[in-house]
Amino acid sequence: MINKLVIVGVGLIGGSLARALRDGGHVREIVGVGRSLGNIQEAVRLGVIDYAEATPALAARDADLVVIAVPVGSIKGVLLELAPVLSARAVVTDVGSVKAPVVAAARAALGPLFANFVPGHPIAGTERSGVGAATPDLFRGRRVVLTPENETEASALALMQTLWTATGAHVSTMSAAQHDTVLAASSHLPHVLAFVLVDMLAQMNDRSAVFDCAGGGLRDVSRVAASDPTMWRDICLANDAAILKLLKSYQNDLAALARAIASGDGQRLLDTFSRAKSARDVHFIER
Amino acid sequence: MINKLVIVGVGLIGGSLARALRDGGHVREIVGVGRSLGNIQEAVRLGVIDYAEATPALAARDADLVVIAVPVGSIKGVLLELAPVLSARAVVTDVGSVKAPVVAAARAALGPLFANFVPGHPIAGTERSGVGAATPDLFRGRRVVLTPENETEASALALMQTLWTATGAHVSTMSAAQHDTVLAASSHLPHVLAFVLVDMLAQMNDRSAVFDCAGGGLRDVSRVAASDPTMWRDICLANDAAILKLLKSYQNDLAALARAIASGDGQRLLDTFSRAKSARDVHFIER
Repeated sequence: MINKLVIVGVGLIGGSLARALRDGGHVREIVGVGRSLGNIQEAVRLGVIDYAEATPALAARDADLVVIAVPVGSIKGVLLELAPVLSARAVVTDVGSVKAPVVAAARAALGPLFANFVPGHPIAGTERSGVGAATPDLFRGRRVVLTPENETEASALALMQTLWTATGAHVSTMSAAQHDTVLAASSHLPHVLAFVLVDMLAQMNDRSAVFDCAGGGLRDVSRVAASDPTMWRDICLANDAAILKLLKSYQNDLAALARAIASGDGQRLLDTFSRAKSARDVHFIER
Repeated sequence: MINKLVIVGVGLIGGSLARALRDGGHVREIVGVGRSLGNIQEAVRLGVIDYAEATPALAARDADLVVIAVPVGSIKGVLLELAPVLSARAVVTDVGSVKAPVVAAARAALGPLFANFVPGHPIAGTERSGVGAATPDLFRGRRVVLTPENETEASALALMQTLWTATGAHVSTMSAAQHDTVLAASSHLPHVLAFVLVDMLAQMNDRSAVFDCAGGGLRDVSRVAASDPTMWRDICLANDAAILKLLKSYQNDLAALARAIASGDGQRLLDTFSRAKSARDVHFIER
């Protein structure tokens, strides 16, 4: 049982974790911190948090667990505010989509308390954001990756494994570097491709007809382009090297496909599409 | 009431149209033609068609309406087989995702009977294929584009407008050229991007971890990569010019985004992502 849980950033992820842990009876008191007054008032009204504090430092004074659920680019600032007030037993974790820069920031900001920091990433986002979208079931059946360092206290890691498992998630661990490479492929690149596609279509002269003639395909492909722009700016800047490497590879593959179309190479198109279909069919079971 | 409806290609689209028209009481007899014996037997077993004929020519002899629902690259061959046996009152239509090459093929193949040809495209595909996926509700609320030419008989056009409307679809008309430009953007390019993405990810050394760490984002973005490879090869070859033009534009936009990431230009990333989010939020209402 967590006596005092602090959620810094009570949005979709932070709010959903708060609700899941509350529903499971794992916390006594939940304190929220957020920059948007409207959102934080809604969090209190919805019962997601018990009350709000104005700053991370005010909230974290006697916290048992602090969850940092703000965009990746804001995590370092929160860590610097937390460092002077954290007790030696407080566990700190985050939910950022990029891990190596967060680990580096935490090591620098927290000093000896870094041993109590458990870098984490619940792969459970949707294109929605804000506490109004928070639901205790968000993590059920989803994967949570923790990326502990050598210094990480086993008890702190175990606490986060227990709590995430209690939300219904499947918890695994890997290095921060591997996480960032893997997520660049499974999430960051797909988001970038969708954002660029929708931005391009929206600037076409024919855009009314284009969106009017959109079927389920474009609806699905473009859904993640409704995601929070600030969050994704931060992810692109924080995981720039891995994303750029994959973008380069994708640009090469796209150029090869364009050449196949231009030269009427139907066999190459069929081969590419068939390999993709096989992989999609194997790796994703549709309901 | 259609006395004899012939469906050439009893897959998702052809089968769904047959079921919708049967359920609505618009047809007396439905004859199917297909190359896959297993699929055509299933079509009979499911009651989607009353019986099968071995070739389009055998089926179409006294047909009132012939629906060609085969991949775009196979439509011309079907038209050539149909031409000698069609009666002067038979209406012929297709459901191909590309219209200008189909119109040209029909004009060449059908001669004076071209006036009875109504080029059509129901924008209702999914990543599934085959008659087993056919459902009479497939077209409900979806758009069907008809692209009549100057020669097209008003009565033939009116018949197809009536029948598609009866399936619950919203019917509109535009030129074949505009259709092909618009669909290249709203459907063909998104499919190509998804196929290339999944093919790339499936060849990564880390692919197990990548697909294991996939969230709803990649699931959505990649769904159309499970579509029928032959159908999409044909679409790329038939609409090559429009797709290549958009691919070029997309490659430029992607290169610009890569430069923004490489130079740490957060403002440009935020601008791009914000414009995309606004467009996605405006043009698609999520349930």
